[in-house]
Amino acid sequence: MRIERPRYTERFGAVRINEMQKVLELDSGRAREMRTYEDISAQKIEEDAIKDVEEKMAIVIPTKDEKLKLFEGVISGVPHECLIIVVSNSERGRVDRFMMEKGTLNQFCQFTQRQAFIIHQKDPVLAQALTEAGYTDLLDEHERVRDGKAEGMILAMLMATMAKKKHIGFIDADNYFPGAVWEYVKCYAAGFSMAQSPYAMVRILWHYKPKISGGIYFKKWGRVSETTNKCLNSLISAQTGFETDIIRTGNAGEHAMTLKLAQILPYASGYAVEPQELMSILEGFGGVLPMEQPTAAKHGIEVFQIETRNPHLHEEKGVEHLEEMLLPGLGSIYYSPLCQEETKQLIIDQLLSQNAIKPNEELPKPHLSPPLKEADLKKFATFMEEHLESYSVLEKE
Amino acid sequence: MRIERPRYTERFGAVRINEMQKVLELDSGRAREMRTYEDISAQKIEEDAIKDVEEKMAIVIPTKDEKLKLFEGVISGVPHECLIIVVSNSERGRVDRFMMEKGTLNQFCQFTQRQAFIIHQKDPVLAQALTEAGYTDLLDEHERVRDGKAEGMILAMLMATMAKKKHIGFIDADNYFPGAVWEYVKCYAAGFSMAQSPYAMVRILWHYKPKISGGIYFKKWGRVSETTNKCLNSLISAQTGFETDIIRTGNAGEHAMTLKLAQILPYASGYAVEPQELMSILEGFGGVLPMEQPTAAKHGIEVFQIETRNPHLHEEKGVEHLEEMLLPGLGSIYYSPLCQEETKQLIIDQLLSQNAIKPNEELPKPHLSPPLKEADLKKFATFMEEHLESYSVLEKE
Repeated sequence: MRIERPRYTERFGAVRINEMQKVLELDSGRAREMRTYEDISAQKIEEDAIKDVEEKMAIVIPTKDEKLKLFEGVISGVPHECLIIVVSNSERGRVDRFMMEKGTLNQFCQFTQRQAFIIHQKDPVLAQALTEAGYTDLLDEHERVRDGKAEGMILAMLMATMAKKKHIGFIDADNYFPGAVWEYVKCYAAGFSMAQSPYAMVRILWHYKPKISGGIYFKKWGRVSETTNKCLNSLISAQTGFETDIIRTGNAGEHAMTLKLAQILPYASGYAVEPQELMSILEGFGGVLPMEQPTAAKHGIEVFQIETRNPHLHEEKGVEHLEEMLLPGLGSIYYSPLCQEETKQLIIDQLLSQNAIKPNEELPKPHLSPPLKEADLKKFATFMEEHLESYSVLEKE
Repeated sequence: MRIERPRYTERFGAVRINEMQKVLELDSGRAREMRTYEDISAQKIEEDAIKDVEEKMAIVIPTKDEKLKLFEGVISGVPHECLIIVVSNSERGRVDRFMMEKGTLNQFCQFTQRQAFIIHQKDPVLAQALTEAGYTDLLDEHERVRDGKAEGMILAMLMATMAKKKHIGFIDADNYFPGAVWEYVKCYAAGFSMAQSPYAMVRILWHYKPKISGGIYFKKWGRVSETTNKCLNSLISAQTGFETDIIRTGNAGEHAMTLKLAQILPYASGYAVEPQELMSILEGFGGVLPMEQPTAAKHGIEVFQIETRNPHLHEEKGVEHLEEMLLPGLGSIYYSPLCQEETKQLIIDQLLSQNAIKPNEELPKPHLSPPLKEADLKKFATFMEEHLESYSVLEKE
């Protein structure tokens, strides 16, 4: 893979946010010494370096009643070296869609001889393991894990930690193009192989997000992303005193982290999760608030934003879904102790103009789950190990 | 890449047509010894074997006034080891689209440090080189190369021969997904690395070809493909006496050949070119007509049909374009000396029912260009070498 070098890095305390980098070439061929002048603007990440990262990476596919054909396509695009972890919150009632997903995953893994885990968010065993680990924040009043994408992601992080992975990447199950999925993983791996710090995050920016209505229109920016990025940039600009548009990936569902970083961040529920990750990094390591993680602060936190070559074509979920995404994301910025008055006003103005709130309506405050390092990961693992076989798709030999 | 093994091979004289094989996994990870039982149904083609083929492969992108954004995406998906050859028949008048294509290709190749050629079909130098080589069949009354995709493909074969490549693959410039382009090339390379004979062809079958009208519908079969395949299968069935549906890729624009095979086939003009390639193989090596190429016949001709994981999403050219494609393709089957009465009747019935001909209307007979081995390739190369620099995108160092 050949990728642009970041031309600029915004530094905010111990946080280094790299400017968006474009993928130039999906497949940069065999390993070769680059000539010095080649190396200035573009960086070639050798296949071997990418595979080194992939071997240590879990790719998480959160799914909720997604079409099986799409689900199957997505898993077929995940490079072989990665461990696949499917977190499903699909229907188990009249039609047991979870069993269908498990069957599909199983068939794929048999043919391709690879390992994968699949868990259901409502599985009582998982809830029990969380209780054992003293991490009950995810549980509802029925002692089950709450609904929500963020909650599924946190479960996946625990599974990846148990599987002794070093990196975790997320890919939505509604993608039409296995080739795009493949590229996301390559971008994650490229990012981590560029990272200097063991506390790193890679966020994906799609080249285009085609809109289908009659014909096809290659939209660059979704309305939700545009608004979220604007508000995040406003927050950073107000803090540094220099206006910036560095953040391009505030809502990036496709993103990855080192597990070291994943374990020290608090997470917001539902759709606030992705913008909140950035907020948690800025709050924890921006140098404005006290830094409570000295080791991570010493290494610094690196954020990469990588623009894919493939467009992002996925199932259309409609306008309601978009509004559902906007409000929680902006809430996570609004309620941050870093958020100054002008950014708060911008957020309110944006929400009013998009009819997402009524005048004088309060923004919902996101629910924050504590960082995973507060869970007893050993106890979680010990409890889960007994049941692990039922979550694994390949039979023991 | 992991791919199904063909479960069946149709043998027709010296021709071996393999049943369609599905891609199972885009990226099968590092090289590893496969266990015997794994090897039965699926075949893993190691990255190294694929790159060995890519180094010897030219990827041809025929283009005619295609959107530059699409063109740029397509070239970015071609693996680095392949030589890119762009054959353009774009406008050079009011707007010089050819120069825009050249500029785009140039910029891409500078950043990625790779070699490519770009030629314009109407370039008088090319016409002169053809005259020198005694291969004037492609020229029109103005001593220029005729319009038509097939004519451009033949020019590209000459360029690839000159560049001493062993394989040539074709990819249309109107593809929306660089990741799909990448997969086509991997399929070509996988096919050639499976081939036993130096006379081999790989034809691509798309997993789906989504139709966009209001929403998105994942169509498996286009009408033109379905009809062409039916008629080709009818021809083979009538000859062997055993009904077959082996041909799934009669109209495959995405296909590749070894140059050894490319040089001994006659080619039809325009849109008849892809079905005619199969007809030329069946006529030349099926054992029904005299075999005039004893060396190739001894090795046998292998045809692979590979189904991609990615859907095929490209610029919609509308219904007229479809009919333009159907008639010439069926003409190439109809006028074959192998075509028996029942297949002829089927072709007429199909064309009538689709309103592609009027009752009693004659089918257009395709124009056939002689095999390239009848051209003096050395003379072509000698003449072209003087001008080669102007077709190459990278400056001499």
